[in-house]
Amino acid sequence: MEKVCLVIGAGAGIGGTVGARFAAGGYHAVLSRRSDTEGLERLVGDIQAAGHKATGRLLNAVEPEGIEDLIAEVERDIGPIHALVFNIGAQVGDRTLSETSHKVFERCWRMSAFGLFRAAQAVCPLMASRGGGAILVTASTAAMRGNPAQHAHASAMAARRMLCQSLNAECAAQGIHVVHIVVDGTVDAPDTLGRMLGPERFAELRATKGADDGLVLPEQIAETYWHLAHQHRSTWTHELDVRAWSDQAWWNHRTATRI
Amino acid sequence: MEKVCLVIGAGAGIGGTVGARFAAGGYHAVLSRRSDTEGLERLVGDIQAAGHKATGRLLNAVEPEGIEDLIAEVERDIGPIHALVFNIGAQVGDRTLSETSHKVFERCWRMSAFGLFRAAQAVCPLMASRGGGAILVTASTAAMRGNPAQHAHASAMAARRMLCQSLNAECAAQGIHVVHIVVDGTVDAPDTLGRMLGPERFAELRATKGADDGLVLPEQIAETYWHLAHQHRSTWTHELDVRAWSDQAWWNHRTATRI
Amino acid sequence: MEKVCLVIGAGAGIGGTVGARFAAGGYHAVLSRRSDTEGLERLVGDIQAAGHKATGRLLNAVEPEGIEDLIAEVERDIGPIHALVFNIGAQVGDRTLSETSHKVFERCWRMSAFGLFRAAQAVCPLMASRGGGAILVTASTAAMRGNPAQHAHASAMAARRMLCQSLNAECAAQGIHVVHIVVDGTVDAPDTLGRMLGPERFAELRATKGADDGLVLPEQIAETYWHLAHQHRSTWTHELDVRAWSDQAWWNHRTATRI
Amino acid sequence: MEKVCLVIGAGAGIGGTVGARFAAGGYHAVLSRRSDTEGLERLVGDIQAAGHKATGRLLNAVEPEGIEDLIAEVERDIGPIHALVFNIGAQVGDRTLSETSHKVFERCWRMSAFGLFRAAQAVCPLMASRGGGAILVTASTAAMRGNPAQHAHASAMAARRMLCQSLNAECAAQGIHVVHIVVDGTVDAPDTLGRMLGPERFAELRATKGADDGLVLPEQIAETYWHLAHQHRSTWTHELDVRAWSDQAWWNHRTATRI
Repeated sequence: MEKVCLVIGAGAGIGGTVGARFAAGGYHAVLSRRSDTEGLERLVGDIQAAGHKATGRLLNAVEPEGIEDLIAEVERDIGPIHALVFNIGAQVGDRTLSETSHKVFERCWRMSAFGLFRAAQAVCPLMASRGGGAILVTASTAAMRGNPAQHAHASAMAARRMLCQSLNAECAAQGIHVVHIVVDGTVDAPDTLGRMLGPERFAELRATKGADDGLVLPEQIAETYWHLAHQHRSTWTHELDVRAWSDQAWWNHRTATRI
Repeated sequence: MEKVCLVIGAGAGIGGTVGARFAAGGYHAVLSRRSDTEGLERLVGDIQAAGHKATGRLLNAVEPEGIEDLIAEVERDIGPIHALVFNIGAQVGDRTLSETSHKVFERCWRMSAFGLFRAAQAVCPLMASRGGGAILVTASTAAMRGNPAQHAHASAMAARRMLCQSLNAECAAQGIHVVHIVVDGTVDAPDTLGRMLGPERFAELRATKGADDGLVLPEQIAETYWHLAHQHRSTWTHELDVRAWSDQAWWNHRTATRI
Repeated sequence: MEKVCLVIGAGAGIGGTVGARFAAGGYHAVLSRRSDTEGLERLVGDIQAAGHKATGRLLNAVEPEGIEDLIAEVERDIGPIHALVFNIGAQVGDRTLSETSHKVFERCWRMSAFGLFRAAQAVCPLMASRGGGAILVTASTAAMRGNPAQHAHASAMAARRMLCQSLNAECAAQGIHVVHIVVDGTVDAPDTLGRMLGPERFAELRATKGADDGLVLPEQIAETYWHLAHQHRSTWTHELDVRAWSDQAWWNHRTATRI
Repeated sequence: MEKVCLVIGAGAGIGGTVGARFAAGGYHAVLSRRSDTEGLERLVGDIQAAGHKATGRLLNAVEPEGIEDLIAEVERDIGPIHALVFNIGAQVGDRTLSETSHKVFERCWRMSAFGLFRAAQAVCPLMASRGGGAILVTASTAAMRGNPAQHAHASAMAARRMLCQSLNAECAAQGIHVVHIVVDGTVDAPDTLGRMLGPERFAELRATKGADDGLVLPEQIAETYWHLAHQHRSTWTHELDVRAWSDQAWWNHRTATRI
């Protein structure tokens, strides 16, 4: 049985790349995502081609039992989940209040907050029985403050953030380390940002921001995920933020006359 | 047609008392709550006995169309809703992660965050068309930080908080003032705290804390609700906290060696 | 002997107007400011002309004993200070790191944080011996987050904010209510904003924002100061924010691609 | 000329240990502290005995020109400062408002906030001219919220926090990475905690909390400092917290009836 890093929400951005980093570090990376078998197989194949271990699974995170079954299956067939990366973005694009349907508002919460709750409920007892584990949760700026046209997203991400705090308050003493990673910047991620913007605007953004370091690079943030998951338990971080050097932090909003 | 203050979640604590305060100030108070017709009639009767206007309605806030129908009915039969007090507590008691069922986790969110979303979606266009209105949201400390055994509650309250920020970001410029009121203390409320503790412990708490001013008094906090709802629109508060003078704020946690 | 409201930092904006509001409510308003005897006399004269009580004093808040002597003198000659409004802005304009002299950095802190510390140390024992009092502290957005070219200001305002929290943690139980009021918007204040912008840009801003309600109006925010100072002690607010309806809150910073 | 890591505030806890970690990673560690030549020489000697480079300097950080001269001297004689660790604790023990002298309040700020301002002003232009550098600032829970008997400390630490945010807002785009590290727990540090508690209580605490992992271990947190200083500039963290797994985070304060 091999030490597993299970990624829930594994696209070609943060999710898949963090999985690859953990695979390179000796974990069996289990990558799961909702759709795109081909993209998933490419991620898994790349990890295997590098000589590391990986498995891919399609997962509908809002379907009853989907998350629970996946966790049970991985634990039974592959190995104990020592690191769980919860990376579902729950981004539904800009929608004003009237444009946000009940269905979208609920789905957003179901993916982000309820999904993590279900995953934690399934995996925490197993981690606790083994003396510990790490749950790394990718968050966005919207977890920290609301915004126009982000009613569903901000609300869902905040629900997830406070769930992380509650989990830590209860589970840290069982050896389970939950980290809430606020990605406060634009990620160089073709599967999410790329699709949202379309190929032309995405290329333009990469040209403007500089793909070298003006966007959050998945392979670089993966190093921070790795570090966090392996902090000694005398020294655990619960929350941190991340952005590119050339970006202003979310709190730096100024107009000439507001000081 | 009379100017209406609609209270969603009107027990004998903050909800009913705020309703009475608005009725005394010239509003028609519409009090709604899930159950206890007798208690509801008592609240309504007390307001009417004081010479003010009030109506009571039972409301199941998690039922489809319940909130929407109530808002439509009030607007049609009683008058325009100028103030909406969203006062559903969504408290489910302490439950560890494993004791928190899917159903409880979801119900908590449905009452607090989804309920406000639905209410806002129904009432904001009406308020905007009239040039404005106030939405006063009662929050608890759990909206600000997670806690052990509060997975469902903290997550749901945080979802509501960020929804408030999103609503303000979009709707303030339409004249709609959303206020998130963090009640960071124990309220002298027989219907919620009283039931949670039971009559003996509640009496003991009142004796210890001093019912005069060591618990948040509903009739006193009602003055702050009234003030907030009537701030001039050059001067709008989005968030504030409230507690009794003898309580420490939630952030004042100290152990001897953590400084 | 009359109940006194002492304003430290009383220009024609928030300070003087809050003083006038308290005078109208039965306090003897003692207005103090660093310079401009003429402006000070005008404020005092206006209050007196309205039939209320007021006294003016020049005060250099960074001079040793200045604040302490004023408080002692007021208590001896006029009456007990029941409300202290600390309204020194400590704004030094935009300065990059290299443009910020040691002297400016220190002066900013001396006015804002050290000044409040000295005032609190002088007045709190007096208030405590009388069973209570209110200290209302005007804050700015810079107390909540840093900003480019605001090294001195943001640092000084944050020092003041945490001092307020420490004061509450110790003094609330003695009946002293400290409120930190985050003015997160542009105030219609000729003495500060008006001077900073110059008459032309100030007039233009008022025309654009709408002097009616697009800037924080001193006479309107004064109502909130009054309310806070008179909250029943079962219901004390420690912190709140204020801005005009047409402004976005400081946390609402968005770019198209950061979500 | 060698790449330097300058530690301001280098005791046997975080400061000296972070210096040793950077020395092991190829930096020349320059350790500075106010007093205890013997202790300083021991730290330097240990690093050198491990085959790495280190230099010790006594530094009075509140003395005019002390910090500036040290930075100039290091840059001239040893090498370019690529990492600056600002680790002055500015802890003055518990003091009520009346027990906190003007001198203590000012000294606390002078060490923590003014000291960092002076260091940043001296080193940032040098770092910017070389394309970048890292400034790692050790913070405490008091930077996040006030507390009784911590008037001086909390105020000074908050001043430092907002200075960090202002520095980042201006200097990140020049390649300078400022990180504010909130040590929200008890550090296993003989020179600070050990002295504060005395040998007996310190030994007792270590026995209770478990020196293995119940206190923040300097050699473990040093790994996180190292990681932060070497984050790729596409992925910069501005703030994070750290505590032992068995500690509750500062925000997790609960009483039975506050929910």
